[in-house]
Amino acid sequence: MSHTTLDAPSLTDKLLAARTASLTLATANADLKNRALHAIADAVEGGAGTILPANELDLANGRENGLSKALQDRLALTDARLTVLADAVREITTLVDPVGESIRGRVLPNGVRIDQVRVPFGVVGVIYEARPNVTVDIAALALKSGNAVVLRGGSAAENTNSVLVSLIQEALASVGLPADSVQTIDEFGRDGAKELMQARGLVDVLIPRGSASLINTVVAESKVPVIETGAGVVHVFLDESADEKWAVDIVHNAKVQRPSVCNALETLLVHRGAAERLLPAVLARLRASGVVIHGDDETRALFADAVAATEEDWQAEYMSLDLAVRVVGDIDEAMEHIRQYSTHHTESIITNDLGNAERFLNEVDSAAVMVNASTRFTDGGEFGFGAEVGISTQKLHARGPMGLPELTSTKWLVRGSGQIRQ
Amino acid sequence: MSHTTLDAPSLTDKLLAARTASLTLATANADLKNRALHAIADAVEGGAGTILPANELDLANGRENGLSKALQDRLALTDARLTVLADAVREITTLVDPVGESIRGRVLPNGVRIDQVRVPFGVVGVIYEARPNVTVDIAALALKSGNAVVLRGGSAAENTNSVLVSLIQEALASVGLPADSVQTIDEFGRDGAKELMQARGLVDVLIPRGSASLINTVVAESKVPVIETGAGVVHVFLDESADEKWAVDIVHNAKVQRPSVCNALETLLVHRGAAERLLPAVLARLRASGVVIHGDDETRALFADAVAATEEDWQAEYMSLDLAVRVVGDIDEAMEHIRQYSTHHTESIITNDLGNAERFLNEVDSAAVMVNASTRFTDGGEFGFGAEVGISTQKLHARGPMGLPELTSTKWLVRGSGQIRQ
Repeated sequence: MSHTTLDAPSLTDKLLAARTASLTLATANADLKNRALHAIADAVEGGAGTILPANELDLANGRENGLSKALQDRLALTDARLTVLADAVREITTLVDPVGESIRGRVLPNGVRIDQVRVPFGVVGVIYEARPNVTVDIAALALKSGNAVVLRGGSAAENTNSVLVSLIQEALASVGLPADSVQTIDEFGRDGAKELMQARGLVDVLIPRGSASLINTVVAESKVPVIETGAGVVHVFLDESADEKWAVDIVHNAKVQRPSVCNALETLLVHRGAAERLLPAVLARLRASGVVIHGDDETRALFADAVAATEEDWQAEYMSLDLAVRVVGDIDEAMEHIRQYSTHHTESIITNDLGNAERFLNEVDSAAVMVNASTRFTDGGEFGFGAEVGISTQKLHARGPMGLPELTSTKWLVRGSGQIRQ
Repeated sequence: MSHTTLDAPSLTDKLLAARTASLTLATANADLKNRALHAIADAVEGGAGTILPANELDLANGRENGLSKALQDRLALTDARLTVLADAVREITTLVDPVGESIRGRVLPNGVRIDQVRVPFGVVGVIYEARPNVTVDIAALALKSGNAVVLRGGSAAENTNSVLVSLIQEALASVGLPADSVQTIDEFGRDGAKELMQARGLVDVLIPRGSASLINTVVAESKVPVIETGAGVVHVFLDESADEKWAVDIVHNAKVQRPSVCNALETLLVHRGAAERLLPAVLARLRASGVVIHGDDETRALFADAVAATEEDWQAEYMSLDLAVRVVGDIDEAMEHIRQYSTHHTESIITNDLGNAERFLNEVDSAAVMVNASTRFTDGGEFGFGAEVGISTQKLHARGPMGLPELTSTKWLVRGSGQIRQ
């Protein structure tokens, strides 16, 4: 793969080009942006001839460098996967354009009209790992919300991303939008990621997508404002009054349906007064699906087929068929455990006690707090957003599943007729 | 003034105490928070006997250390100023409590109800300069929005702030709220500010208030998410069709009414086709109010009583009776100048051309973009927010004047009846 040469643009050149492109994008109407997305979808679907060989090169390098089977699977593209990717882009054309949406407005007593409207951020930076589908997906979401986007994907997908970005740029140019609206900085390697994190003023917001360690690095090092996504040490608390069927079904669904995602259950807390009634059935159902139970002493007394939990288990985001289980004295002890160990993503209480349900909703400080529902519902698709940019676990700007509006800022439009301040 | 001793709590102790206090505040209803605010107002108004001697000590130190007259004036408290401060706190009791406000909600097809509601951030850190009124004002705003607050004021006001915070803490305790809800970390000096900026996880958001250099330092160094406030290199553009009376009145109001604030005019741009018609009258009116004109060559050809502008003038946030003036060829050149030099706070066009008005509104990327109105209107009070936390010049979370809702985050409440994800 070609790396930087004397003639190639510098990273700053690329960011300035993105800024210039963002000015055009900011005033592009939805029809034009949707034409660009259709062109991109067609290019991805029709581009197998150039995409798949580049992808095969990345995969060969990955096998040589000992890339894990799981990461190889995430990296691999096929004709079928390209069609899925293209259809996802077409789906984004059906979403409402958030740009220009009026959020609030009024006429001041002096006759001045003020309106707060959504505007694009400008230039969005994304740092992610070797998943070429993110390249296309996030580019489409950024474009639909009127933003230019600068992509730093994992080096393991560098050849694939390079071809994908070229195809996207050609598609943009074909409808008259600036090719520089979508750019990759993969050729700058790790230094490029570092430089991107320092580019305050050139990049308006940085979104890390990937592992907890990637996200933590970006959060700690970035001078550009960051939207923190992802990590989920997710809890379910089975209250004393929990319905047994709901407990069994919700815990199983939250843990087993897709264990590798951030809204999957990691720690189960059980009220001491219900442990004997609920735990054997709940845990037996999990074991039947291959879940390894990491239990405290009380759990192991009730369910022999469990390994002893240690402090690390309460902190673990397993993302696998493992579950930490702990018996607690009451809802206060459950909420205290959650305060100590949660990443504030999603927590759910299973209860028939109205007072406890309301206390849990009010007092647990997480992006999504649930009563009698599976934690797997914390998801942009499930919430009806039509697309998901990620799940924010920070408190600033966006919290929980992010859709297109979360990729925008706002500005105030003020219309007067000569008014001055008294 | 007492500094840290072995027995005194560490800064981390104080942040942890603030976190604990924030749990109580988060579920305190508006009646209770308003009772606390009334108790604080009474304590401030009735506390002259302890506040003013401490303030006199700070002023004496300030005079000794060569504190400027302007800063001495900002630092000085009097009986009358304490009453104004107390009344401002009472005013905040009349504002709607943002906590619990439902922003959006729906029932999903599977019967699960989702509601996005406002919740406090938790612990808000504020770093500011020697203005004791900010101590009371920001504490009241933070409390009303359910947040604990950790204050790092300027060392020049350390004695005054210490007394004010003690009075606030007694007032909180008198209504049954945790005294630790409001704390000062002034005793830790500059190291305290540095430590506060590193306290990610303990502090949810950091708000710097004060000079551009203070804000820039916090933005560059903080690992805690920051809401950037303030700096305003504010522009007015007189378009070719600008009404002369509006031009004269608005420019004068924007520059002269209160030159030391962030929404005051700093650079005037004039369409070449209107310069001869408008500039003499506009600038004569300013000169009559003592404004020093820093003009480019074309401006000086039309108005002799101007000094030559240099590159520094286009970048200057004077906050004084100085104005940079430049003649431009058209609206595109005006917007290009604004893109290059603006801090994206407020810009206004004076025009009778509908197309240019709409282009300016759409294409200028600032927190407030105006047509035919004074830039002095970018203000929480003028916008009807009832209080102002500051004016955000960043794009994440809040942009423009911030009221109580901007001191909150959100969470999703999810209510099911056993639903699992298919």
